[in-house]
Amino acid sequence: MKSNYIDHIGIAVKSLDESIPIYEKLLGSKCYAIETVADQFVKTAFFQVGQTKIELLESTDSDGPIGSFIEKRGEGIHHIAFAVDNTNDALNNAKANGFKLIDRVSRKGAEGMNIGFLNPKKTKGVLVEFCSK
Amino acid sequence: MKSNYIDHIGIAVKSLDESIPIYEKLLGSKCYAIETVADQFVKTAFFQVGQTKIELLESTDSDGPIGSFIEKRGEGIHHIAFAVDNTNDALNNAKANGFKLIDRVSRKGAEGMNIGFLNPKKTKGVLVEFCSK
Repeated sequence: MKSNYIDHIGIAVKSLDESIPIYEKLLGSKCYAIETVADQFVKTAFFQVGQTKIELLESTDSDGPIGSFIEKRGEGIHHIAFAVDNTNDALNNAKANGFKLIDRVSRKGAEGMNIGFLNPKKTKGVLVEFCSK
Repeated sequence: MKSNYIDHIGIAVKSLDESIPIYEKLLGSKCYAIETVADQFVKTAFFQVGQTKIELLESTDSDGPIGSFIEKRGEGIHHIAFAVDNTNDALNNAKANGFKLIDRVSRKGAEGMNIGFLNPKKTKGVLVEFCSK
């Protein structure tokens, strides 16, 4: 299935309060939304850069995925999310093409998107997300 | 200075020959160019996804930046490149805003772009590139 564009790039940070002003200076644009996604133990801050959003991710629980990532690798780029027409179709297609799924079916993410992740072992170390509206 | 859009995302891989067919399946689009950038010790392969390119990077020398990155962290996302109107202006502006420069002035990168990098220590672990035509 074709990826239409890059919906967002997720960046793991220790503190949104500290990181938002830094990214506002870096990107030359304002953070337009802050949202907590409770079931992923994460608080997110969004910036729009052309078609793509930069999503800063702060962990709300050290056992959550972002907390573990920072503990292991430090702050930095966490995932790339590709916009597709239908996340479930993209996941099924990826499985048929030999990729390994983290999510067998889509679930709800930030901004009400239908999201699903692939295991980075089959994508050259990149944590890939598919998302659709 | 405002970033207009995300020009590309660089992904460090051990082998382009192995990675290109994987990314063609993942993205649902064909690699449209392969280019060697001799002074960066790197061979690159490009895919277009909306406004943004995915740039796979294979090291041509284990002492080069991509070789060192893979040795230290394994394959994975290496950098994000933001399209700006003028790379030198963006570098000067970043310096004035407290960011740390890797390149004080722009140099030539793949596809003839004027490129310049920021030190990831001041950008929450993200290796940021500015680029302009």
